[in-house]
Amino acid sequence: MIKVGIVGLGYWGPNLVRNFQSVNGAEVHSVADFDNNRLQKIHQLYPKINLCNDANEIFENPEIDAVVLATPINTHYDLAKKALLKNKSVMVEKPLATSRAEVLELMEIADARGLSLMVDHTFLYTGAVQKIKSVIDSGELGNLQYFDSTRINLGLFNPNWSVIWDLAVHDLSIFDYISGGKKPVAVSATGIAHTKMGIENLAYISLFFDDDTFAHITSSWISPVKIRKTLIGGTKKMIIYDDVEPTEKIKIYDSGFSVSTPEDMHKWLIDYRFGDIYIPKLPQIEALKGVAEDFIRSISEKTTPLGNANSGLNVVTILEAAQKSLVNRGETIII
Amino acid sequence: MIKVGIVGLGYWGPNLVRNFQSVNGAEVHSVADFDNNRLQKIHQLYPKINLCNDANEIFENPEIDAVVLATPINTHYDLAKKALLKNKSVMVEKPLATSRAEVLELMEIADARGLSLMVDHTFLYTGAVQKIKSVIDSGELGNLQYFDSTRINLGLFNPNWSVIWDLAVHDLSIFDYISGGKKPVAVSATGIAHTKMGIENLAYISLFFDDDTFAHITSSWISPVKIRKTLIGGTKKMIIYDDVEPTEKIKIYDSGFSVSTPEDMHKWLIDYRFGDIYIPKLPQIEALKGVAEDFIRSISEKTTPLGNANSGLNVVTILEAAQKSLVNRGETIII
Amino acid sequence: MIKVGIVGLGYWGPNLVRNFQSVNGAEVHSVADFDNNRLQKIHQLYPKINLCNDANEIFENPEIDAVVLATPINTHYDLAKKALLKNKSVMVEKPLATSRAEVLELMEIADARGLSLMVDHTFLYTGAVQKIKSVIDSGELGNLQYFDSTRINLGLFNPNWSVIWDLAVHDLSIFDYISGGKKPVAVSATGIAHTKMGIENLAYISLFFDDDTFAHITSSWISPVKIRKTLIGGTKKMIIYDDVEPTEKIKIYDSGFSVSTPEDMHKWLIDYRFGDIYIPKLPQIEALKGVAEDFIRSISEKTTPLGNANSGLNVVTILEAAQKSLVNRGETIII
Amino acid sequence: MIKVGIVGLGYWGPNLVRNFQSVNGAEVHSVADFDNNRLQKIHQLYPKINLCNDANEIFENPEIDAVVLATPINTHYDLAKKALLKNKSVMVEKPLATSRAEVLELMEIADARGLSLMVDHTFLYTGAVQKIKSVIDSGELGNLQYFDSTRINLGLFNPNWSVIWDLAVHDLSIFDYISGGKKPVAVSATGIAHTKMGIENLAYISLFFDDDTFAHITSSWISPVKIRKTLIGGTKKMIIYDDVEPTEKIKIYDSGFSVSTPEDMHKWLIDYRFGDIYIPKLPQIEALKGVAEDFIRSISEKTTPLGNANSGLNVVTILEAAQKSLVNRGETIII
Repeated sequence: MIKVGIVGLGYWGPNLVRNFQSVNGAEVHSVADFDNNRLQKIHQLYPKINLCNDANEIFENPEIDAVVLATPINTHYDLAKKALLKNKSVMVEKPLATSRAEVLELMEIADARGLSLMVDHTFLYTGAVQKIKSVIDSGELGNLQYFDSTRINLGLFNPNWSVIWDLAVHDLSIFDYISGGKKPVAVSATGIAHTKMGIENLAYISLFFDDDTFAHITSSWISPVKIRKTLIGGTKKMIIYDDVEPTEKIKIYDSGFSVSTPEDMHKWLIDYRFGDIYIPKLPQIEALKGVAEDFIRSISEKTTPLGNANSGLNVVTILEAAQKSLVNRGETIII
Repeated sequence: MIKVGIVGLGYWGPNLVRNFQSVNGAEVHSVADFDNNRLQKIHQLYPKINLCNDANEIFENPEIDAVVLATPINTHYDLAKKALLKNKSVMVEKPLATSRAEVLELMEIADARGLSLMVDHTFLYTGAVQKIKSVIDSGELGNLQYFDSTRINLGLFNPNWSVIWDLAVHDLSIFDYISGGKKPVAVSATGIAHTKMGIENLAYISLFFDDDTFAHITSSWISPVKIRKTLIGGTKKMIIYDDVEPTEKIKIYDSGFSVSTPEDMHKWLIDYRFGDIYIPKLPQIEALKGVAEDFIRSISEKTTPLGNANSGLNVVTILEAAQKSLVNRGETIII
Repeated sequence: MIKVGIVGLGYWGPNLVRNFQSVNGAEVHSVADFDNNRLQKIHQLYPKINLCNDANEIFENPEIDAVVLATPINTHYDLAKKALLKNKSVMVEKPLATSRAEVLELMEIADARGLSLMVDHTFLYTGAVQKIKSVIDSGELGNLQYFDSTRINLGLFNPNWSVIWDLAVHDLSIFDYISGGKKPVAVSATGIAHTKMGIENLAYISLFFDDDTFAHITSSWISPVKIRKTLIGGTKKMIIYDDVEPTEKIKIYDSGFSVSTPEDMHKWLIDYRFGDIYIPKLPQIEALKGVAEDFIRSISEKTTPLGNANSGLNVVTILEAAQKSLVNRGETIII
Repeated sequence: MIKVGIVGLGYWGPNLVRNFQSVNGAEVHSVADFDNNRLQKIHQLYPKINLCNDANEIFENPEIDAVVLATPINTHYDLAKKALLKNKSVMVEKPLATSRAEVLELMEIADARGLSLMVDHTFLYTGAVQKIKSVIDSGELGNLQYFDSTRINLGLFNPNWSVIWDLAVHDLSIFDYISGGKKPVAVSATGIAHTKMGIENLAYISLFFDDDTFAHITSSWISPVKIRKTLIGGTKKMIIYDDVEPTEKIKIYDSGFSVSTPEDMHKWLIDYRFGDIYIPKLPQIEALKGVAEDFIRSISEKTTPLGNANSGLNVVTILEAAQKSLVNRGETIII
C-alpha cells in the first residue's frame, strides 16, 4: 500500500484527494494546508486522513511514501526538493517548477535516490489526447506539419505568473506528448500585460524545429468566450481537437495538399484534397484518476509515467524561453 | 462620366468590370488581358467595352480617366506608376505594392498631379466592418486592448508571395481602418514554408504599439476548415466578428474586467464582468460596389476613399517588416 | 422549522435531499426507500436524517410537516393521497399524477385541509424560463403565436409510460407557465413504439386553442443527438431557447411579419422584418433549490408556488388527452 | 436533339433555362411568359431562344419535344394536360398537381402516348440525398424506424396554398425516394393560419405505416431562423442531414438501441450504443443540372427518372390527405 501525503487544498487539492483515495494500492495518509476550514472539509469526507498545517510534517513522516504538491508555482521547487531529500516520490501540479535549472536539480536528486518525480499534465490522460496520440503513432496523420492551439477565456488572472504558465503549459504538455518529446530549437513569444500588475494576460508562443514542424500557442485571460481548440496538421490527415465540445471533441479530416514539380521546373503543381471526416467515440474517463494511477504505478512498478520529469523539463524549458522572449517583443531565443 | 480602364481579367477582374459598370457617373471604357478567352467573355456580356492585350493601350488612351489594376502583386508598382505618369487616377488590388518605398513613390506622383491613388481593401466596405468601426468610434467599446484575427483555410497557395501578402493583408487593412490608422512601433512574425517553393504558407504576425493595444494575426493556407474570426477587446466591451457566419457575423459582448488596488498595495482585485450579448442586424451590401463608388467619388469629388493610399502604405509597411521578421524566426523589427 | 420527509432515493431523490437541506427554515427529517444501500449513502452525507424502508413511517410521523415524492409515476396518486390524509403538505415529482381525475381528487383533499400540493416542474425555476416569462409578460413579444418545442436524445426508455410522460411534461409545464395557464381546446398526438414493450418512444403533440396560438411538442428517446430547443413566436418578436447551449440559452429575435390589405382587396401584402438579436445574460441559479424554497414558502407563508397543483392539473390533462390521441393515430381529442 | 419549351420565367424559370441549355442532346427552343421584361432578360443571355407570351404557342409547335412548366401550382394540371395532349413530354415544378385525381389523369395520358411525365423533385439530385439513399440501400442503416424533417424559415408566404405544398413537398419527395416509395396507410396533420388569408403558415404532418416506420414533417414560414434538418433512424445507424451546413451536411451516427427480453419476462433490457460519427464527403453537383439531364434521358432513352410521375403521385396523395386533416385538427385520414 503506497501512502500518499497531499500538500495544498485549494481548488485542485480536494480532487487529488478524492482520486488518490480511489486508486487500488494507494491511500491518502495525510493532507496539509494553512487553512483549517479546508482541512475540516476533507475531514468530513474522509475522517481517517491525518490533517496538518505544516507540509514538513508530511515530509518528515516515515510512513509516507509519496507526496503530491498542489501549491502555488513558486513553491514547487522548494517543497519538491525537501520531499525528495526525505526519500518521498513526488508529483507536482503543472508546471513542474519555474526554470530549467530547478527541474534539472530535482531530476538529479530523484534519479540518485531511485524516486519517482512526476508532473500532473492532466490532459495527457484524457480520451481526446490519447486518441490523437494513437492516430499520430499509427502513422495515419503522416509527418507532423503544424500544431496550433488556442486556449482562451475570461477570468482568473494569476497575479504572479503570466498567462503562459497558467494556460500554455497545457498545450505544451500535449504537444510534447503527441510529438514524442520533440524539442524546439528556438522560441519566439509575444504578448501584453493590460494591468498594472505587469503580468502578461495575452500571449502567443511560436516554436521552431530543425525540420518541417511548426507550433504556435495562443493564451488569453481576456477573451469574451471560452475557446479550447487545437489544429494538428500532418502530411496525410489533419485533426481538430475542440475541448469545449461536449462529445465530438476530435474530428479527423482526410484532407491535405501535395506539391509536385513537373518537368518544366518553373512551375509548381499543388493538389488539394478534401475528403471524409471521422469523429471517433472517445472513452469516458476521469483524467485525474489516470494521473493518480500512473503516479502510483510509477512507484510500485518502477514504470515511467506519461507526465514524467522529462516531459516536465521540456515544458518548463520552453516556458522559460518564451517568457524571456515575451518581455523582449518576440526576440528569438535559441534553446 | 469617369471612364475606367481595367487591367487583368483573372479571378477578380470580371467582378470589378461588373461593379464599375453599375456605378453612376462611371463606365468601363476598356479592359486589358493577355488571354483572349477572358477578353471574349467580357465582350459577350458587355459588347461596348474595348478589348486590348496590352495595358499600355489603356494608359496611353487620353479618353480614359482612371485605371484599375487586378494583376499579380509584383506588377502593381510598375503598372501603377506608368498609369499615374499618364495622368490616370489608379486603384490597385491589395496589397498596393510590395514595399513601403514603392508606395511612397506612387503617392508622391499621385499627389503632385492631383490624382486619386487607392487600394482595394474590400472588407472595409462590408456591413460587418462598418458596424465594428461605428461601435469603436462611438466609444461603446472603450479603449482598444487587443485585435486577434484568424484567417485560414485549405488552398490556393501563391507561388511567389507568402500567405501574409494574400491573407493577413485583409486583417491589417481592417485593423488600420477600425483603429483609425494606429501605427505599430514594432513587428514580430513567425511561420513556416511546407513546400520546396520556400513560400511561407502558415504565418503569425504580432504588432506592438506604444500604448495598451496589441494585435495578432494568424494566416494559413493549410487548415482543414475555413475560419475567419476576429476578436476585438476594449476596456468596456468586446466584439467577435465571424465572417463565416451567414447572418450573425458580429457579436458584441458586454463583458470585460477591471483591476483595482485596495489600500493594502500587495493585493490586486480583478473584477470580471459577463453581460448581455447583442447581435446587430447588418446591411446587405455588395462590398465591391462600395469600393467602385468610393474610387469614382474620390476622382469626381476629390474625396478621400476608405482604401486611400495612406491605408495602403500602413498595410504594406507592416507586411514588409513582417516578412523580414518571418525569415528571421520572429526577430523584432522596429518600424 | 418545516420538517420534510422524502420518499424515493433513486436518480432524483438525493438531489432533493441536498436542496431541501439547504433551504432556510426547513430540514430533512426522514428519507424512505426500499433499498438499504441508497439509505446508507444518505446516512454518510447527513447522519442526522432518519432512515426508513416504508414510506408510511413518514406519513404517520406527527413531527413531519411535508412530504416529497420522488417515486415512479404510477405511485404518485396513492402516496400523495395517503400523505395528504395525514395532513402533510405534498410535493410530487412530475407529472403530478396519471390522470385528470386523480389530480382533481388530490387537489380537493389538499384544499379542504389547507395543505400545499405542488408538483416539481423544475424548468420553471431556471434563469432561462424566468427570462422568457418576463419577456412575454412585459409585452415585448406581442401576442403568442406559436410554441414549438423539441426534447430528444438517446436513452432511458421508461418501461411503463410513454415518452410524453417523461419528456413532453417539461415542455407542457413551460408552456403552461409562460402562457399564463392558457388552456388548449383540443389535442392531437401521434407517434410510435419501436419496442415490443408497446410504450411510445417517439411522439408529437399538437395543441389547439380558441385563438391564434398553436403549440407543438416533439419527444423522443431515439435521437442520435441531444436537442432541447424551443421556438416561441409572437406578433412582435420571436425567441429561441436552446437549453443545450452552455451560456447563450436565450436568443431574442426582433423579427416577424405583418400582413396588410391594400385597397385592392384581392391582394395581400406581407412584410417581413429581420432585425437585431439579443442574448440576455441569465442568472446562474440551481433550479431545484428554487423548487425547494418555493414549496417551503408555500407552506410557511401560504403562497402559491410556480409549480402549483393547477399547473400540474393542466399538464396532466393534456398528457392524458395526448396519450388517448396517440394510440388513435392523431384523433382529435376535445378537452 | 430534344427541343425544350419552358413556360414561366419567375424565380425558378431562368435557372431551368440555364440548365437545360447545358444538357448534351437538348436545347431550349422557346420560352413563354406574360411578362415581356422577363422574356427580354432571357433574350439578352440566349438570343437564339424564341420568345412568346402564350404557352399555347409552345404546345402547338411541332418542333418542340418537351415542355417544362414553372408556373403557379394551380395551373400545373391544365397546362400539363394540354402539353401531353399535343404529344409533348412534360416536366412540372413541384408539386406535380393539386390532387391525386389530377395526377392519375395526367399519368394515364402520358402512358397512353408513351410520353415522359416528370416532376422536379430537385433535392433527389443533391449529393446529400444521393448519399442517404446509398447508405439505406446498402443496408448500413438497417430497417428505417423514423424520418423526422424540419424545414422552416421566415418568409415568402404563398397566398393560395398552405406551407405544406411549398415546403413539406420537399421532405415528402425525399422520404419517398430514400424509402423506396414506401406508402403511408394514414396521415394526420395539424397547424395554423396566422393571417386573414386563411392559408396555414405553420404545419406538422405525421405519416403512419403498416410496419415499424414513422415519419413526421415540420413546415413553417414564420421561424426566426432557417432550419433544414432531417433525422433518419434505422435499426443499425442513424443519420442527421443538415442542409444549412455548407460542407458537413450528412452525419452518420453508429448509435442505436436494442431490446432484449431475459428469462424473467417481466423485465425489459434496453441497450444503448453510442459509437463513432462519420461525415462523408459529398460530390459538388448542381442538382438542377441532374434534373434536366434526367428528364432529357427519360425522353431519349425511355428511362425512368428519379422524379417520375409515381413519385409525384405519392407526394401529392399525402399532401392532399394532409391538407384535409390540417383543416380538421389532426383528424386521421386513411389513404
